[in-house]
Amino acid sequence: MNLRIPGPTPVPQQVLDALSHPMVDHRGPEFSAVVKRVHERLPIFFQTKNDILSLTTAGTGGLEAAVVNVLSPGDTVLSVSIGNFGERLAKIAATFGANVVSDRYEDGEAADPARVQQALLDNPAISAVMITHNETSTGVTNDLQALAKVARDAGKLIIVDAVSSLAAIDLPVDEWDCDVVVTGSQKGWMVPPGLAFVSMSPRAWAAYEISTMPKFYFDLKEHKKSLAKGETPWTPVLPIYFGLDVALDMMLAEGLPAIVARHERIGQAARDGVKRLGCSLLAADERRASNTVTAVYPPAGVDVKTIRSGLRDEGFVVAGGQGGLSGKIFRIGHLGLVSDQDIADTLAALGRVLAKAAVPA
Amino acid sequence: MNLRIPGPTPVPQQVLDALSHPMVDHRGPEFSAVVKRVHERLPIFFQTKNDILSLTTAGTGGLEAAVVNVLSPGDTVLSVSIGNFGERLAKIAATFGANVVSDRYEDGEAADPARVQQALLDNPAISAVMITHNETSTGVTNDLQALAKVARDAGKLIIVDAVSSLAAIDLPVDEWDCDVVVTGSQKGWMVPPGLAFVSMSPRAWAAYEISTMPKFYFDLKEHKKSLAKGETPWTPVLPIYFGLDVALDMMLAEGLPAIVARHERIGQAARDGVKRLGCSLLAADERRASNTVTAVYPPAGVDVKTIRSGLRDEGFVVAGGQGGLSGKIFRIGHLGLVSDQDIADTLAALGRVLAKAAVPA
Repeated sequence: MNLRIPGPTPVPQQVLDALSHPMVDHRGPEFSAVVKRVHERLPIFFQTKNDILSLTTAGTGGLEAAVVNVLSPGDTVLSVSIGNFGERLAKIAATFGANVVSDRYEDGEAADPARVQQALLDNPAISAVMITHNETSTGVTNDLQALAKVARDAGKLIIVDAVSSLAAIDLPVDEWDCDVVVTGSQKGWMVPPGLAFVSMSPRAWAAYEISTMPKFYFDLKEHKKSLAKGETPWTPVLPIYFGLDVALDMMLAEGLPAIVARHERIGQAARDGVKRLGCSLLAADERRASNTVTAVYPPAGVDVKTIRSGLRDEGFVVAGGQGGLSGKIFRIGHLGLVSDQDIADTLAALGRVLAKAAVPA
Repeated sequence: MNLRIPGPTPVPQQVLDALSHPMVDHRGPEFSAVVKRVHERLPIFFQTKNDILSLTTAGTGGLEAAVVNVLSPGDTVLSVSIGNFGERLAKIAATFGANVVSDRYEDGEAADPARVQQALLDNPAISAVMITHNETSTGVTNDLQALAKVARDAGKLIIVDAVSSLAAIDLPVDEWDCDVVVTGSQKGWMVPPGLAFVSMSPRAWAAYEISTMPKFYFDLKEHKKSLAKGETPWTPVLPIYFGLDVALDMMLAEGLPAIVARHERIGQAARDGVKRLGCSLLAADERRASNTVTAVYPPAGVDVKTIRSGLRDEGFVVAGGQGGLSGKIFRIGHLGLVSDQDIADTLAALGRVLAKAAVPA
């Protein structure tokens, strides 16, 4: 099966092989060496000098960690939400007692920096801004640089969901001055799910010191303390670290600029391809369409179910729509381990499925 | 290296091989079949008809889930703590706002049902009792049946840390009427860390409905809803599920009674062996010594560091003491994938290390 969903993404054979490493003491020298090697190299892809913590959890757990470590109940936070995952981040903050000011865009739209600026002017109580870099549910990438600048100029803390962008779409954390940035192992990193990575700026650590949202498993200071010894505070998911150790070798060999360029090229090929086949993009402005996942409206009269099951018969798995987009769109994932040929093959299969769907027997 | 620590435990080769399964859609039919197979068989080892939820997290995350799903800030809970992990559970509850009444025993002691009964009489405000079944830090197994009976007779909710006992030491959840029971994949289950399992009784679900501790990632009702579709609410750690699927085959082939008997026999062999070599047990009453981990005082004049590094040179990894027991004891893990021969080999190596340590060159 060709897995063309926006995560879990396909994993290279040498990474799969590394998952089978026998267990070792998670507090012993062998594993400590792995943790250190991994954490020496993660910053290259975050393009940051900030601390990066690795947590045994799904991306959603990483988002929870981002929220509960820097906020307090009653804090007013702006949720800049362009889809399902933006809503999730807002819901986490509200669950833990934040006063969430919600700015929800239409599906397919990208966030507007001027509108964010106005919201911050309108509500000076806002202390932090939560932004999704790449919205997996709609295939839209926000102009994070411009959005972060607006939040930064207003002196707000910036919390970024970069789960489906980091290590695939350029996100220079230090240059764009983002305080808390979250990503997950099963996306750009070419390893299975199980680890989330969270970067914390000095401003984020200052916020930590006064944050009163309850945290134990996701307490990032405990992770920082343990990391200094090459350890994690709780028993880590060893196989994913073993896999990541190998995946980072591969990523470094390719180099971040080449990885980003490959995703740009393949994202463009995916968009050009689906349009050529009579589909249209959910992204309202193609310049903001994502290079890691393409959200696609089928041609009129062809339903999503037919396309997804037809593609499955051809050996390709694509994702459906989430929430209100269920049954309306399908999504092609193209991040991590993905080549020009992979996406050409996917488009060819889609062409055959559409041809079949359009011609009644 | 022979891994003789109380988790992560050694993983059979066929389980290691299963970890390398290529990624699949975590919302597709292949993975749904795995989730269903796993969840059909977990209840056999919990000996329960209660719901069991699987979470992508370490055991500590499972403990946090156990607490935040059934308690509210201000609830008075009794912590029956016989060591480091008992303290951890108490700290989680306190972090999330519970009023924790702490009953901490001396290291090596087991909890006394009469003392628990008295504590419940003394403080009628207590609504729940938190108990560690097997305390990994001291190698002591509580008489959970008697402790649970006392709590049950008093009408209290029972939260059990069974991380290092379940599937190795008998714990009939329904017969002993335990409401929330937590365990972790890297212990008795012969798979790597990354998954925690939590069982919830109808009384626990009733407590969930009025619980106000904040929860999102660990919200067990979300897990229950998704499980009905053979899914998890957040992206799961697929490789550990693939491994567990195979490990459960092996466990069923052996059968729970035989697994429990093997751990009893091997626990006894470990205790007899270390005593024969001039060591002594931390467990105050050997009848309460654990069958999954043996906590050992070295002979007078031999330090723990010498023993651990000597064993490492012999190819055996054992654990040290935690917290106040650091440098005072070492711990031999014997749970999950462990044979009579494994423990005989470990004891033989310990004998050689002690002989060398006792005779100055």
